[in-house]
Amino acid sequence: MRPPTPPTASTSPRTLAADLPDLPPGTPVALRGWVHRRRALATVTFLVLRDRSGLAQVVVRAGDGQVVPPEETVVEVTGVVTSNPQAPGGVEVTSPTVVLLTDPAVTPPVELWRPSLGVGLATMLDHAAVAWRHPAQRARWEVAAASLRGFRAALDAQGFTEVQSPKIVGSATESGADVFTLDYFGRPAFLAQSPQFFKQQLVGVFERVYEVGPVFRAEPHDTVRHLAEYVSLDVELGFVRDHRDVLTVLRDVLAGMVAAVHEHAGSAVAAHGFAVPLVPDEIPVIHFAEALALVGAPADEPDLAPEHERALGRWALAEHGSDLLAVEGYPMAKRPFYTHPQPGDARWSNSFDLLFRGVELVTGGQRLHRYADYLAAITARGEDPAAYATYLEAFEHGMPPHGGFAIGLERWTARLTGAANVREVALFPRDLHRLAP
Amino acid sequence: MRPPTPPTASTSPRTLAADLPDLPPGTPVALRGWVHRRRALATVTFLVLRDRSGLAQVVVRAGDGQVVPPEETVVEVTGVVTSNPQAPGGVEVTSPTVVLLTDPAVTPPVELWRPSLGVGLATMLDHAAVAWRHPAQRARWEVAAASLRGFRAALDAQGFTEVQSPKIVGSATESGADVFTLDYFGRPAFLAQSPQFFKQQLVGVFERVYEVGPVFRAEPHDTVRHLAEYVSLDVELGFVRDHRDVLTVLRDVLAGMVAAVHEHAGSAVAAHGFAVPLVPDEIPVIHFAEALALVGAPADEPDLAPEHERALGRWALAEHGSDLLAVEGYPMAKRPFYTHPQPGDARWSNSFDLLFRGVELVTGGQRLHRYADYLAAITARGEDPAAYATYLEAFEHGMPPHGGFAIGLERWTARLTGAANVREVALFPRDLHRLAP
Repeated sequence: MRPPTPPTASTSPRTLAADLPDLPPGTPVALRGWVHRRRALATVTFLVLRDRSGLAQVVVRAGDGQVVPPEETVVEVTGVVTSNPQAPGGVEVTSPTVVLLTDPAVTPPVELWRPSLGVGLATMLDHAAVAWRHPAQRARWEVAAASLRGFRAALDAQGFTEVQSPKIVGSATESGADVFTLDYFGRPAFLAQSPQFFKQQLVGVFERVYEVGPVFRAEPHDTVRHLAEYVSLDVELGFVRDHRDVLTVLRDVLAGMVAAVHEHAGSAVAAHGFAVPLVPDEIPVIHFAEALALVGAPADEPDLAPEHERALGRWALAEHGSDLLAVEGYPMAKRPFYTHPQPGDARWSNSFDLLFRGVELVTGGQRLHRYADYLAAITARGEDPAAYATYLEAFEHGMPPHGGFAIGLERWTARLTGAANVREVALFPRDLHRLAP
Repeated sequence: MRPPTPPTASTSPRTLAADLPDLPPGTPVALRGWVHRRRALATVTFLVLRDRSGLAQVVVRAGDGQVVPPEETVVEVTGVVTSNPQAPGGVEVTSPTVVLLTDPAVTPPVELWRPSLGVGLATMLDHAAVAWRHPAQRARWEVAAASLRGFRAALDAQGFTEVQSPKIVGSATESGADVFTLDYFGRPAFLAQSPQFFKQQLVGVFERVYEVGPVFRAEPHDTVRHLAEYVSLDVELGFVRDHRDVLTVLRDVLAGMVAAVHEHAGSAVAAHGFAVPLVPDEIPVIHFAEALALVGAPADEPDLAPEHERALGRWALAEHGSDLLAVEGYPMAKRPFYTHPQPGDARWSNSFDLLFRGVELVTGGQRLHRYADYLAAITARGEDPAAYATYLEAFEHGMPPHGGFAIGLERWTARLTGAANVREVALFPRDLHRLAP
C-alpha cells in the first residue's frame, strides 16, 4: 500500500455553511465539505459546497488560480465572506483557496446537485450511501432522527426507563409465522418479531419502559408498507386503568415527536414542505363497532379494510379536525392472546389502532396481567403454557395491570415526509429481495 | 376463559414511595406497587411496598382489618402519612386499606427482600424477569439506562445525527469468522457484527453519526467478558485530522455519560456505592511501543496481554491520577483493514484502545478515506474488492478523513457497577449456552 497522504487541511477553525450569513463581510473563513456543484462560466466558476449544515456558494475567478475538482470531491475552501444579494443567504465566499482533502471523486451514479434525485426507487436504493447525500432525501432522515429524540424525551420526562432486549430468541411463540431462523451454535434460534414479551416482563421491574430497536418479520409481502427489518419504538407501562391510559401516553409521545421534529429538523420541514401533523390535546376515539357502522361495513366484519381506514381518516378530519383517530375495541378474535378483553363484553378488546390520516400507524392496548388469565388464553389457543414458561414467570410472581404500544419508525417517517414507500425512509432497507447495500 | 376482574384500584392520584417524606403528616395517599416484604409481629404487620421510585413502610395493625398478601403481590395501599423517625425516610403509612390489583403472587424463586440476592449466576439469569426486581440488581440497569441518555445527549450537543443501520447483512466480509448465519427467504444472510461499514458510509451523508443497537458475535468463548449479543454504542465522524480528534470526542462522550449517571441514577450510585470514574479534561495517551517498554514486554509483541493492560491501568492512576488511559499506535497487523496507518511509519496505526481501570473498554481510531487506499488494503489481504462494492462506493464518490469508536454497553456498565460478569448487567443475556429467558 502506498503511504497515505498526510492531512492537508489548514488548522483554521471550521465555519459551517449555515453560519456564513451571520458573519460580517470580509471575515476569513475555512469551509469543509463536498463539491455539491461546479458551474464553469466564461470568467468565473461557481462552486457550491455542501456540508452537514447546508450549502454555500464559492466564487472562483480565473485570477484566483484555483482548480475546482469534480462534484462530490471533499475539499477545504478558505476565502473571504462577501455580500451578494443574489447568493443563497445573501453571502458567498470569494478569493478562495481550494484544497482537496481526498482524491477527486468519481462521478456519482445519481446527480445529487439536481433539485430532485429523479431516479427510480431501485437505483436510489442500490446506491443508498450516495443517494442519501441529496438534500431532499437527507431531510427525510433528519425527520426520523428528530422523531427518535422526541420519543425518548417525552418518555424520559414521564419516568420511563430505556431497556434493550435481545433480538435472538429461543422460540417463535409470539406469532409463529413469518419468523427468521438462524443457526445458534448448532441449534435453531429466531430473530425477535417484537420486544413484546420482554417489555411486559420489564414492567414488573421498572413499571414504565421503552425500547428503540430493530424488529424482524420474514413476511413474504412485497408492498410499499412492509420491510423485513424495521425500527420499532416500543412502550409499555404498568398501573393503568385500561387502554385509555395507554392512549394518553401515546398522545404525549406523538406530541413530543412532533415538537422535536419542529425543533431539530425545522429547516428540513420548511425546505421540503413536510406536512407535520398537529397532535390534539385529546385524540378522538371511536369504538370498532361504531366505526364499522360509520363506514357502512357489515357488523360482523372482523377487521377494517384499508378503504374503511381511509374513510375513517376523512371522518376524523371533518368531524374532529384531527389527523389522528383511535379505533378501540377491536374484536378479540383478531388480537394477540395477551390482549385484555373489554370488561363486560369479551367479544371486544381493550386495544386500539391509531390511524394517522387514514392509515394504521400504531397498535396498542391493555394486556392481560393475571397469571390465570394467561394460562386460560394460551390453553384456549390449543397451546401448552410450558412453551411460554419464562414469560409467564413474571405474571406468576405479580404483575400490575399494564399496556403499551409500538410505533414503526419508517411508517411514521413516510407519512410525515410524504414518501410513497417505506423503503425511501429506511437508511438501508431490507425486504423480500433486498439484502444490500 | 373466565371474565377478567375489572380494575379495583381507587381513582385517587398515585403517590410514589420516594415522594412520601415530602408530604406533611396526615396527608391521605394512595401507593401502588409490589409487596416487597411482609413481616407479621404480634400486633402489627409491616408491609414494605416497592414501586419504581423505591420502598415505603406501611403499618397494618390488627384493628385495621386488613390482610397483607404474599410478597410480590401487586397492591394499592391507601392510608395516611405518619411521622416515624425509625421508618425509612422518617415516614410511614398508617390506617391502610390494602386492595389487590391482581391475584396473590406465588412465592418467587429468589428472595427479593433480602439485602442481596445471594444466589448463583445461573439462578439469577434463569429467573431474570423476577431477579431484576431486586433493588441492587435494578440499580445496575439504571446506570446503563442513564449512560445511554448521557451518550446521546453529548453527541446531540455536538451536531451528530442518530442513525439506525440494518442488522441483517448480505455478506460476512467485515471479519468473516464468528458470524451468525440465517435463512433469508431461502438464501443465506448474516447478523451484523457491528455497524462499522454503515456508519462510515453515513459519514458521507451526515458527517457525524451515532447508533445504539445490538451487535452479534458467534464467539465460542465462555468468558466473563463475552456475549453473543450485546449493545454497541457506535460513533463515527468526518473531517478529523487524525485519531486524536476522535479521542477528544470520546472524552466528551464519556464525560457526558458519567454526568448523566450522576444526574439520572444518582440514588442508585449512592445506595450501592458504585465507583463512577472521574473523566479528566484530557485523557492521557501513551504510544503502543512505549507501553510495551513500560510493562517490560518484548518490543515485537503484536498486542497487549491482560496483565499488561492492568499494569498500564495502575501506571495511569499513579502517573496521571486517571482511571482512563488511551494506548495509540497499535500495530497495523492487528487492526482491521480499514484502519488508517500512522503517517511516517506504517507499522503503526492511527488507532487506539481506551483502557478503563486497566481493562479495554473502547476501540477506536482513524479510518482510511481514499478509495485507492481501500482497493490496496483489500487486495493486500488477498481479497477481491468486488466483494465490498456497496461499501466502497461511498469512498469512490468522496469521503472526508474520518474516524470513530464503539463502546460496549455491558462492559461499561459492569465496570461502573462492579459486576464481575457482563451477564449480570445484560437484561436477558445471550451466550454460547443461553438462549432464554
